[in-house]
Amino acid sequence: MRLVVVGADGRMGRMLIRAVAESEGCTLSGAIEREGSPALGQDAGTLAGLQPLGVPVTDDPLPVFAAAEGVLDFTTPAATTFFAELAAQARIVHVVGTTGLSEADLGKLAAAAHHARIVRSGNMSLGVNVLADLVRKVAAALDPSFDIEIVEMHHRMKVDAPSGTALLLGEAAAEGRGVSLPEVRVSTRDGHTGARRPGDIGFATLRGGTVVGDHSVTFAGAGERITLSHHAEDRGIFARGAVRAAQWAFPQAPGFYDMTDVLGL
Amino acid sequence: MRLVVVGADGRMGRMLIRAVAESEGCTLSGAIEREGSPALGQDAGTLAGLQPLGVPVTDDPLPVFAAAEGVLDFTTPAATTFFAELAAQARIVHVVGTTGLSEADLGKLAAAAHHARIVRSGNMSLGVNVLADLVRKVAAALDPSFDIEIVEMHHRMKVDAPSGTALLLGEAAAEGRGVSLPEVRVSTRDGHTGARRPGDIGFATLRGGTVVGDHSVTFAGAGERITLSHHAEDRGIFARGAVRAAQWAFPQAPGFYDMTDVLGL
Amino acid sequence: MRLVVVGADGRMGRMLIRAVAESEGCTLSGAIEREGSPALGQDAGTLAGLQPLGVPVTDDPLPVFAAAEGVLDFTTPAATTFFAELAAQARIVHVVGTTGLSEADLGKLAAAAHHARIVRSGNMSLGVNVLADLVRKVAAALDPSFDIEIVEMHHRMKVDAPSGTALLLGEAAAEGRGVSLPEVRVSTRDGHTGARRPGDIGFATLRGGTVVGDHSVTFAGAGERITLSHHAEDRGIFARGAVRAAQWAFPQAPGFYDMTDVLGL
Amino acid sequence: MRLVVVGADGRMGRMLIRAVAESEGCTLSGAIEREGSPALGQDAGTLAGLQPLGVPVTDDPLPVFAAAEGVLDFTTPAATTFFAELAAQARIVHVVGTTGLSEADLGKLAAAAHHARIVRSGNMSLGVNVLADLVRKVAAALDPSFDIEIVEMHHRMKVDAPSGTALLLGEAAAEGRGVSLPEVRVSTRDGHTGARRPGDIGFATLRGGTVVGDHSVTFAGAGERITLSHHAEDRGIFARGAVRAAQWAFPQAPGFYDMTDVLGL
Repeated sequence: MRLVVVGADGRMGRMLIRAVAESEGCTLSGAIEREGSPALGQDAGTLAGLQPLGVPVTDDPLPVFAAAEGVLDFTTPAATTFFAELAAQARIVHVVGTTGLSEADLGKLAAAAHHARIVRSGNMSLGVNVLADLVRKVAAALDPSFDIEIVEMHHRMKVDAPSGTALLLGEAAAEGRGVSLPEVRVSTRDGHTGARRPGDIGFATLRGGTVVGDHSVTFAGAGERITLSHHAEDRGIFARGAVRAAQWAFPQAPGFYDMTDVLGL
Repeated sequence: MRLVVVGADGRMGRMLIRAVAESEGCTLSGAIEREGSPALGQDAGTLAGLQPLGVPVTDDPLPVFAAAEGVLDFTTPAATTFFAELAAQARIVHVVGTTGLSEADLGKLAAAAHHARIVRSGNMSLGVNVLADLVRKVAAALDPSFDIEIVEMHHRMKVDAPSGTALLLGEAAAEGRGVSLPEVRVSTRDGHTGARRPGDIGFATLRGGTVVGDHSVTFAGAGERITLSHHAEDRGIFARGAVRAAQWAFPQAPGFYDMTDVLGL
Repeated sequence: MRLVVVGADGRMGRMLIRAVAESEGCTLSGAIEREGSPALGQDAGTLAGLQPLGVPVTDDPLPVFAAAEGVLDFTTPAATTFFAELAAQARIVHVVGTTGLSEADLGKLAAAAHHARIVRSGNMSLGVNVLADLVRKVAAALDPSFDIEIVEMHHRMKVDAPSGTALLLGEAAAEGRGVSLPEVRVSTRDGHTGARRPGDIGFATLRGGTVVGDHSVTFAGAGERITLSHHAEDRGIFARGAVRAAQWAFPQAPGFYDMTDVLGL
Repeated sequence: MRLVVVGADGRMGRMLIRAVAESEGCTLSGAIEREGSPALGQDAGTLAGLQPLGVPVTDDPLPVFAAAEGVLDFTTPAATTFFAELAAQARIVHVVGTTGLSEADLGKLAAAAHHARIVRSGNMSLGVNVLADLVRKVAAALDPSFDIEIVEMHHRMKVDAPSGTALLLGEAAAEGRGVSLPEVRVSTRDGHTGARRPGDIGFATLRGGTVVGDHSVTFAGAGERITLSHHAEDRGIFARGAVRAAQWAFPQAPGFYDMTDVLGL
């Protein structure tokens, strides 16, 4: 499968280049950066700390998309909606790991998905998606006297809280309980809070060091607790998950998919 | 429901008395101890730190079983197989939390289950049984490159390792993978062990303090880990689970059940 | 040592009665409840689930304090400042586990400490005070590029956040670093927070189930993390710590002490 | 400081090359591999995924040591004792992260330390050495009724158990208690173990996935637990610690040092 990496010079971009190079049956066919990037013209392999791959970084996506079968994209909402349109025109696969997409952005992706095969997820790792599935099942199975609390820790540079993955896990819990997350979500506790409101789903956020991403969901009942947690050691799991998503989507019909489709959960 | 507690003066026995007294729709109708126990003749409520319940502890189970609808039993294998016969004669419910039962003991219980409704589990808590169910599902869903490791911690007085609950979780993992636990179980690592054998399920045992029971199962893959854990705060959860099992079994046909039946997992 | 328990009918009051009864060299010489309490006149032992101790609960502290050598007090700020004055008059030991004391309340305790021996702590357990001491040392030893994050979990009925113990640990960390906690404390993170500010000390609060009290302090650096944590299994550790504090304070001069004095840390 | 990396083509060797290249005030002046290594003649920077550093890998250590001020060595016991002699002849710094050294090997290092400045540690990370220091202090401060348990997890390829770092932490605990580790060490529990022997120090070993190294030491008392843990995210912490050790040792007198000297703990 011929794959393009957009945002090639970012931390995730370089991860994606390495993941493509290491995946059997995949070839890097293009690498895109924004106009003015110092990486333009460099070899994508060298950029990613590999041997040269014969693929220079360019800022012109059109011919690159036309010659590709899929695009891997962990960039920004504005770039992603633009790339989705190009992917639709080229009728190829578009794997979207970009976070912070608004409802309007998601609408644009859905429109593009009439022609492109789009896979989007707040977290591309196998483990997190398995965890979300478990959280949904446990939330449905346990009676609501079990209180649900979600904790996450990420590195000190992360700028938003809670993480997209924590929210994804919260959505899974709410879905399992048949409630709407916005109505039960509690993201801050400070000062006189009063007793916990039954049915609430609490979020706690830790920041520090170089933590790639830890998440845990606790179900706390009378005299016992179940905790389901995920620990990411390196960002390679997200890049490998994106490649896996592209390979899964290749033979599918155009449409808007997520990782539970890819993993068959 | 009229319930009898056997082994009434043990730590679990007193827990069971309290759980029966606190459960709606349940009455303590008898309390059994072995011949010679200093508790004989005492009121079972007083023994359990409650107000008197009007039920003296006795060493003669026959008339007590005849007048009861269920028996709660966390004693020893020898006592439990004896009580199972009595429960079969009385055609009542027998909830068995006793550990260390041999294959021969289990055969006797199965025979008694032609007339009694027997519920047996290595762990009567809701949480542990939910956990075992999750472990089975995750072991089946993840490819075998994820290594499975089980850790447990119990108080310093516990005399066997790994705990019955750790083995129950290991059985669930093996079942999910379609393998036989005895063939993949690794319970000790010391000195030059060599690299981990693919497919093994490892057990690690901690002992100390007054820990009621902590268990966790880790699935460790390339770059990520999922950990599912259970923390028991007090033994009341096992006693309450036993009462719940008795109530569930009351309207059932004679048979040999476990907690997954009770909890409908 | 002759000890009085105030707030005898509360959850901690009954714990304290049991701890006194079980401590060698200690006798319960009095038990106080507020006017109108249904416990008045009952035997304090019976109230605490023990055999009768021959000590009826009363609402008149004066004669009781006069005949005692120490008072154990986990009540409310208003009650505690009142009892401190009585303890000063009686020139006895006053152990204060009450939380939520204002600066003005602390001033009253300090005044009473001219005549009473007062031991006050936000957490009377041995373990938490050892932990606070470690946190202070590690915060002083590690360079400030290690980010400090404090997480706590308590049962669903707790009405304030972060817990007094989490703040005590935060104070220890700030002291170790030579900074003022109010200037670096971050207790909420929600939405667009921006990157972590160097030197901040973060707090995260979980609530659920019947958790007695879990606290952990993480130092997150480049590529590694140290986490120091405390897990309380039952409230008995606070009651036993209070008795130990009373015994330690008995031969001391009047003054205002805390658990680091008691434990000699 | 001019530093040589031996075992340059191993996983740790390449980490060390990167750590030297990134450390202010340090230059890579040589890179050694064994005779016949395919890396001979290659540029050490390229080998480590960096820009070329102008340092070809060689199998002749003599001229390289003569021109250097320090050597970083995570190789094998046989290689390390050989390099220690060369470092003594060259009167330079020798940082030893090699594991599995016998008493005889240590004797050779001690002999070489009459002329070389040798820093050896089972774990070069800042965090683990801080943790060991805490463990020693807590073991000394808590009365021996607190049970000590040490758990570690490493990747599936690790061939020995418990890890050298777990043993280092166990030694620290034993030292704090004033006991000899071999007399209290328990490394396996399986089957009927009997109750925990007071004073024992337990070890539990987990293996799986790609875990770089997790260690925790628990002190479990009546009703409470303190746990001190370290989590290594990447092997870079060991390489950076080795460079730091070399820089610390440069102005010291010849002698045999460890990381507690380097870190001033």
